[in-house]
Amino acid sequence: MLIIGEKLSIIAKRVREAMAKRDKGPIQEIAKKQYEHGARMIDANIGPAEGQEDLMEWMVTTIQEVVQAPVCLDTTNYDALEMGLKVHNNEWGRALINSTSNDPERWPIMDLAAKYGCDIIALTVGKGGLPADAEERSAIAAELMARAGEVGIPMENIYLDPLVLQVATTQDQALKVIQTIRMFQDLNDPPMKTVVGLSNISNGCPKQMRPILNAHYLSLLSYEGLSAAIADAEEIVTTVKTIDIFLGKTLYAHSYLEM
Amino acid sequence: MLIIGEKLSIIAKRVREAMAKRDKGPIQEIAKKQYEHGARMIDANIGPAEGQEDLMEWMVTTIQEVVQAPVCLDTTNYDALEMGLKVHNNEWGRALINSTSNDPERWPIMDLAAKYGCDIIALTVGKGGLPADAEERSAIAAELMARAGEVGIPMENIYLDPLVLQVATTQDQALKVIQTIRMFQDLNDPPMKTVVGLSNISNGCPKQMRPILNAHYLSLLSYEGLSAAIADAEEIVTTVKTIDIFLGKTLYAHSYLEM
Repeated sequence: MLIIGEKLSIIAKRVREAMAKRDKGPIQEIAKKQYEHGARMIDANIGPAEGQEDLMEWMVTTIQEVVQAPVCLDTTNYDALEMGLKVHNNEWGRALINSTSNDPERWPIMDLAAKYGCDIIALTVGKGGLPADAEERSAIAAELMARAGEVGIPMENIYLDPLVLQVATTQDQALKVIQTIRMFQDLNDPPMKTVVGLSNISNGCPKQMRPILNAHYLSLLSYEGLSAAIADAEEIVTTVKTIDIFLGKTLYAHSYLEM
Repeated sequence: MLIIGEKLSIIAKRVREAMAKRDKGPIQEIAKKQYEHGARMIDANIGPAEGQEDLMEWMVTTIQEVVQAPVCLDTTNYDALEMGLKVHNNEWGRALINSTSNDPERWPIMDLAAKYGCDIIALTVGKGGLPADAEERSAIAAELMARAGEVGIPMENIYLDPLVLQVATTQDQALKVIQTIRMFQDLNDPPMKTVVGLSNISNGCPKQMRPILNAHYLSLLSYEGLSAAIADAEEIVTTVKTIDIFLGKTLYAHSYLEM
């Protein structure tokens, strides 16, 4: 399973200040740490970045200066995305756009994925509010896949995202999202790729419980075939490696946690 | 999910010595600790106990003096089992015999479960060696269920045990056992109950890795509907409670880990 290191977010004060000052130090330190803990892609969440379209370009080059991994470009800003994609070094893998959805305002972003041949996250929500269950998420996914096909995005470049919700407020959705991961894969042959923003599950929960909830939830998602998770690599790498042992994805060795 | 506290085993030196001296102190201390960490049944593993048939009687009364829970009587010794069953206090639930199997030498133990109206673990192995996959385990389970029915054991008194094997030596069996848990339930309506000896999965692994392997393996078994696990309650209770939240078996509250 691919870990997309999530700590480079404008929501975090230290990251926000580094972005504002264009201070590479904290950004590169965090990116390197995520990579060392097993992240093989780095999420760069710059928020809407209005009037700051060059911020994603700076983030991509800053990260890739020190980490040999592709970047997940996390913003709704079309121009910022395009500036980031132009400088992305594809030597270590395709960039990933985070994200399009079934909201018409997010459709143009698909054109960028087609134009630059990169990967894209398709969030299975539309204008109509939150999806109720696995079936509704799959119906939205099918619409998104059809639209992506029309603009020329290969199915293997799409990561379907069921939208993880807070267990504290919408507990019944937790299991439905797990079931959706299985259902998404069946929408295509070869199976569709899937991704989640993991830490959403524990939003609003006491701080000390969040790593516990995140890791256990990831166990079940991973068992159902999840392809990738945007998460703190340090927090979840033990879970990812251990579940991969039980699923037979990696061979057991006494040292498997250190590999 | 029912946790059957596993620490009272003759394999442990401290327990073995307490059994030999009929010293209640260590036995009761361990039983109480398992209960406090969430075990709602206590496993008493006395080994073959030849010439020590009264040992199970002593264990059952010693445990139930301090813990208001039923006991899992863990021995192949028919007479020891019967002496233990005679003194078992059923006020807090039915006793559980561990175990019968498809080995003809283990069949007479079924008569005890019928005679005393208690629960029994049916290990899905026979004389023919280890089962290869979920289908073979289910075929043995069906034979055991038929035999149990003949001697008058209700299906709801049976816990099917797929036999967890060491991941270090038989990695491919890890996933097969998980799949077996689902298949076992489908053998009857209402679904058959299931149980595992959890720590088998990490036998032979480095000591510091065993809790990690045990807990993650239990996550997946629990997701597939496991009814009970013979395990160290202290080691796994966080996992049991957290997975139960995601499965909707308990309602989320910020304090769910303390309940």
